[in-house]
Amino acid sequence: MSWDSAASISTLLTHTDIYKAASEPPTPDASTPVLGLSSQARSKGYDLVCLPLTTDKWKQRWTEMCLLPTGTDLDTDMAAERRAEAWRAKPGFLRDEVTITQLDEAEGATVLISEWLELDAADDWVRHDAEIALQQELAYASYLNIQTAILPPPRSREYVSSYARTVNACLKNSPYMHISIRLPIYNPSVLEGHLSPIPTSPSLRPSSPVPSTPRLVVSDERGTSETASGNLDGTWEMWDVIRTICDYSTRLSLTLDLTPPLPVKSGFLSKWKAEAIRYLFLPSSTFIANTKGYPVLPKGTQSFIRESMTASTCAMHRPVIILSGANLGLHSLGGELAYSQYLRHLEKTSPAVQAALTSGTVENFAQGYQDYLQAPLQPLMDNLQSVTYQTFEQDPVKYHNYEEAIFQALVDWPGDDKIILCVAGAGRGPIVARALTAIERSGRDAHVYAVEKNPNAYVTLQCRKDAEWGPKVSLLFGDMRFIDVPEQADILISELLGSFGDNELSPECLDADGISMPSSYTAHLAPLSSSKLYNEARAGKDEKSVETPYVVMFQAVNLLSGDGGGTNGRCGPQIQECWEFEHPRRDAVLDERGLPLTNSHNARSAKLVFFIPHSGVLHGLAGYFEAVLYGNIGLSIHPHRKDKISKDMLSWFPLFFPFKEPLYLPSNSELQVSIWRLTNQRQVWYEWHAEAFIDIVSVASAESDVPIGSPRSATYNGSLFSPPRNTPSPLVDANDGFSFDRRASMREPVESGSRVIKIGHTSLHNPGGRSSWIGL
Amino acid sequence: MSWDSAASISTLLTHTDIYKAASEPPTPDASTPVLGLSSQARSKGYDLVCLPLTTDKWKQRWTEMCLLPTGTDLDTDMAAERRAEAWRAKPGFLRDEVTITQLDEAEGATVLISEWLELDAADDWVRHDAEIALQQELAYASYLNIQTAILPPPRSREYVSSYARTVNACLKNSPYMHISIRLPIYNPSVLEGHLSPIPTSPSLRPSSPVPSTPRLVVSDERGTSETASGNLDGTWEMWDVIRTICDYSTRLSLTLDLTPPLPVKSGFLSKWKAEAIRYLFLPSSTFIANTKGYPVLPKGTQSFIRESMTASTCAMHRPVIILSGANLGLHSLGGELAYSQYLRHLEKTSPAVQAALTSGTVENFAQGYQDYLQAPLQPLMDNLQSVTYQTFEQDPVKYHNYEEAIFQALVDWPGDDKIILCVAGAGRGPIVARALTAIERSGRDAHVYAVEKNPNAYVTLQCRKDAEWGPKVSLLFGDMRFIDVPEQADILISELLGSFGDNELSPECLDADGISMPSSYTAHLAPLSSSKLYNEARAGKDEKSVETPYVVMFQAVNLLSGDGGGTNGRCGPQIQECWEFEHPRRDAVLDERGLPLTNSHNARSAKLVFFIPHSGVLHGLAGYFEAVLYGNIGLSIHPHRKDKISKDMLSWFPLFFPFKEPLYLPSNSELQVSIWRLTNQRQVWYEWHAEAFIDIVSVASAESDVPIGSPRSATYNGSLFSPPRNTPSPLVDANDGFSFDRRASMREPVESGSRVIKIGHTSLHNPGGRSSWIGL
Repeated sequence: MSWDSAASISTLLTHTDIYKAASEPPTPDASTPVLGLSSQARSKGYDLVCLPLTTDKWKQRWTEMCLLPTGTDLDTDMAAERRAEAWRAKPGFLRDEVTITQLDEAEGATVLISEWLELDAADDWVRHDAEIALQQELAYASYLNIQTAILPPPRSREYVSSYARTVNACLKNSPYMHISIRLPIYNPSVLEGHLSPIPTSPSLRPSSPVPSTPRLVVSDERGTSETASGNLDGTWEMWDVIRTICDYSTRLSLTLDLTPPLPVKSGFLSKWKAEAIRYLFLPSSTFIANTKGYPVLPKGTQSFIRESMTASTCAMHRPVIILSGANLGLHSLGGELAYSQYLRHLEKTSPAVQAALTSGTVENFAQGYQDYLQAPLQPLMDNLQSVTYQTFEQDPVKYHNYEEAIFQALVDWPGDDKIILCVAGAGRGPIVARALTAIERSGRDAHVYAVEKNPNAYVTLQCRKDAEWGPKVSLLFGDMRFIDVPEQADILISELLGSFGDNELSPECLDADGISMPSSYTAHLAPLSSSKLYNEARAGKDEKSVETPYVVMFQAVNLLSGDGGGTNGRCGPQIQECWEFEHPRRDAVLDERGLPLTNSHNARSAKLVFFIPHSGVLHGLAGYFEAVLYGNIGLSIHPHRKDKISKDMLSWFPLFFPFKEPLYLPSNSELQVSIWRLTNQRQVWYEWHAEAFIDIVSVASAESDVPIGSPRSATYNGSLFSPPRNTPSPLVDANDGFSFDRRASMREPVESGSRVIKIGHTSLHNPGGRSSWIGL
Repeated sequence: MSWDSAASISTLLTHTDIYKAASEPPTPDASTPVLGLSSQARSKGYDLVCLPLTTDKWKQRWTEMCLLPTGTDLDTDMAAERRAEAWRAKPGFLRDEVTITQLDEAEGATVLISEWLELDAADDWVRHDAEIALQQELAYASYLNIQTAILPPPRSREYVSSYARTVNACLKNSPYMHISIRLPIYNPSVLEGHLSPIPTSPSLRPSSPVPSTPRLVVSDERGTSETASGNLDGTWEMWDVIRTICDYSTRLSLTLDLTPPLPVKSGFLSKWKAEAIRYLFLPSSTFIANTKGYPVLPKGTQSFIRESMTASTCAMHRPVIILSGANLGLHSLGGELAYSQYLRHLEKTSPAVQAALTSGTVENFAQGYQDYLQAPLQPLMDNLQSVTYQTFEQDPVKYHNYEEAIFQALVDWPGDDKIILCVAGAGRGPIVARALTAIERSGRDAHVYAVEKNPNAYVTLQCRKDAEWGPKVSLLFGDMRFIDVPEQADILISELLGSFGDNELSPECLDADGISMPSSYTAHLAPLSSSKLYNEARAGKDEKSVETPYVVMFQAVNLLSGDGGGTNGRCGPQIQECWEFEHPRRDAVLDERGLPLTNSHNARSAKLVFFIPHSGVLHGLAGYFEAVLYGNIGLSIHPHRKDKISKDMLSWFPLFFPFKEPLYLPSNSELQVSIWRLTNQRQVWYEWHAEAFIDIVSVASAESDVPIGSPRSATYNGSLFSPPRNTPSPLVDANDGFSFDRRASMREPVESGSRVIKIGHTSLHNPGGRSSWIGL
């Protein structure tokens, strides 16, 4: 598959650019200043332009109408209020209050909504009028067929719910408009030991001559709330409120502002992976100069952008980079084009992009399957299609490992008697063929029985026996659970494993006295966050869709758990084992036909405790399996171990167990997951449930140990309006583990005791197998 | 209305009772021991009997099959396993394994499921076999047409999710059976400074000769988990997990075990009010002797039972009291009948019962309306029925207060000119009549205009004018917002107030230059818990029903908030004011017809912060109003103030704003509620949303200050199997505020700083008025 190359880069046109262009004589091919600027941008290689929708005139009128000047001059105030009421009744622009008026100016442009709109003002009236103004701006943008509008960031945690409610109302009122919320990736003021409102980057501020009135700076007075904005997750927390209140609208996205310096690796960044990032805002001031003087990005920002540049890190599609201030000449060499050229270089050298371009990689194989929900196969109940067998037979690793396992078992087999192999569920015969190769390599005397219950695949088996295998293989048509094999099998081989190990009923089908391949397998779980998967599961046609496990190639997914941690180390690793099945089963009670009386022995349950280092929203569980075929030969899709055990194996994507209600998890919390494998005479199914806890004593003492942004941990002195420039910030990288990642301190045993309190739970999913089950 | 008198009292038949009866010769009217005991119970005045379903024989067989004795003797173990597998495949009883076998024995009886079933064992096999046994017992009870089975309590917090999952499976498999979970009201072991599994009362334990095997006492080894069982809310927390996992099934209830001593008043008890209590389990050992030697209950237990005895404190219906051990002779005087006689005396003297029997009280008026959801009236959009007017005209207080307000205003009115009164929305004329009385009393010269837009009620007004009022009243037919009244009104009177004040659009309808009655009104909110209301709202026919405010007479409702508290006193009182409307409006901008250009001035919003002293589940918000009519005369349904302002007023039940997803709130958390009153040209609606926080630093330091159950705060020495008897426990009452209610220590300012973290949120309710709105 080919890679849809080239990241999109947009340039930001500022008021200054537009006013300057307006003051110059029009050219023949550009009848308006904006058309001229757009044409220039294209000629410079930018894919898109981004510009403010309104001018300072609009800000001036709105301010004079809606922010009553003093409250002392009643006549003036009443006149303003009369104008405001007339405007509220029929909101609309005057010609010189907007930057664009024509469809051709708007084509392909993204607009910035007025930066000064205080949608989260404490004052009801300011907020009310800001909402009317926002609706007016969006309606005008809609009129000009603009697809996306970028909103100014919320300014305080305190009223972010009002901001969010307004955004939700706008999504309803502008049914075709896509709204993107600009947010800094974190609030850098937390590093300075004090809290202040979320800053906006200088280059996005309109160069307005209108002085701020006292009412306009209300946000400064509200910066004292410490609620959750005093940490690096603060801006994410605001985003979470916004998208939750907007009910995960697919027309809502993020414009992530990368102005603050980024650490090279830090847990708090990974959560953004699971969010719907549509734009990355990148001012030229974030670039530093390399030794030659050309603009390059600090390492942390570099790697964040690189990851974002592949489809594999964003929930909706690859984000557009909005480059601002490239024409300001901040760096001595390279000129305006140096910035976008550098970004394209980053993309070309991105490992994720390269992997996607290389055939044989999972990244390449999975193109188009990312975050796509598939119902797990039910090979026992359904008869698979030939094309399905064919897809799985392409795996370059799986059958190689089967052959090695059979070869080793044959070599290890004691004595010289003929060895009986039985392939249970032979399908179109890939393992039979491998078994024959292994027999030949081993030089042992052996015979293969191939059992298959799919009458259609059985035709293929007959063809292969005639054409390839001959008398070395005996075919048996029937269900492996009930069929009589003429000879007792010494080695029983099957490929009934599912993404979660036992979810294709391998435990119910396999029982032998000799060697079994797989001889054992384990199921593993980790909690995950993904607004994309949450929305996909909800989009299903009925309520059952949110209680059904899916096979998914994970992409816009963030595992929420960390390794260990929690009170007294009660939490396990990031990915935890649920249960194991072994073959053959020991001490089994069987009836006269050799069958178990009940399926009780295949019931399982697990209760797992995960440590959640960084706040996030639980949307589901990631399920993996690992199997031992023979000796140290196995199969694994466990993210931490698959490369050691079965690198580049393609046959299994992980399993996704959705939760129908997202569960908010604070930093340093603990998640207890219960999962059951249940069975009756006809079905097997899973049920799952989770509870959240926090140890207030240990978290509180850990917190008070290392105050966030304490002077000893940060040397970043930058005012918000002079971000680091031309030299790398000493903070970036150097103090990473300390000031960016508080988990280090959490791992210390806490002496002051513990008190674990419950803070939330989900409902029980799939009770009684009502939404999904596997037929026996 | 008459009071359905007499609490139901059930007697518990124990194994000892049954074995003893079996050893006696049968009587002519009782062919079986159980029939004999039931007949005796009826003759002693008991309404019902409760008895164990199974005998010790069953315990013995199950134990021998399912708890493998040693693991050393393989043959014995395999034999047991073979028997177990045969049983698992076809579960069933032998004749002597059950206490009853006939329909007549089962009639009216409630059964106890085998006490020894460990549904929450740590061992998968024990749990699996306990579940099969439970299903078998329930199936047998169902066969005998038994309506309700009482389950033994979960034994540990650790595996309560497995217990709950099993209960949910049983509810599905026995579609007519009601399941009640026995739980002690709290775990008294927390008072002893150590944690242990939830105890079961001695008298409920079967008097089994079978020794416990090592596998049976697994629960003792699991008592080390501190998760949330180390506090007085521990057993409630387990109940919350169970009913959540059972999705609030209406066939699931509580059998609350009152064995532990109860404080006279304590916040942690009130939460039980909002739960589905079907039985109260009360052993005779909980009774103390009064000065004469007769059995009476300690004060705390007394008042808890008294409250429970009226329908106004339980979610489903009045709980049945299961009295156990009355025949053991624990108290020197009164004999067996003294206990039930005492309970009936408690009922007769219960203030709630008496209030319900007294006409004119809200309790009496509201019979049948408790927890019944009604859509709020929309008198502006709809024309009310005469019978609706009639109901409201019966209020003994409301119109009295209107008359007083009018009288005072008339007396205060300056000068001797004729005073013009206008009744806006006169309905069938109750205020017109009161106004005439007030005018007469005041001796002032006045004229009344009565405006009404309901053409049907206007007929009634014409009748009354002809028959009673004559020329003192002028009738005007039309909408008060647009009608021209011939003279400028000096006093504008209306009764458009709703349960939440402005929810019948009083703000949109009233504007006058003179005196307005009401002159102002405020809306108030408090967070509430109620599984009953949650279920009622969910039972609505479509999804909208969970986003619509309802008028409800609250009954099985617990307000979750406390007064003040929280970090730096950031939390307000238990019930908080949202906003105010005043009439006449100041500085209004009006058009030439005197109408406002937009309804912007009637938009409102509030963000309230509540302190949650005790863990609970948020199901909605309680809405109240308070109005000033004139001077210090008002109307109020604010629970803390209504008795001072308008005692015994019946016209308004509170408003209930539901939340569609229950939100778990831990003890000492903070709830931020946002509510908006929004408006467009056609509608007014509310939107609401909540976020939960906890201050980990202040909670942790408060917790470490006063260890729960520290020796200095509790003198209760009782082993679980010798609860206090014949003498009141010194703990009860004496240390109430300290050891039972940790909020006291929470109120102290905390020096070690604060760190408020978010722990959860709801979704936004009723966005854009999609589910409920009020038409303009």
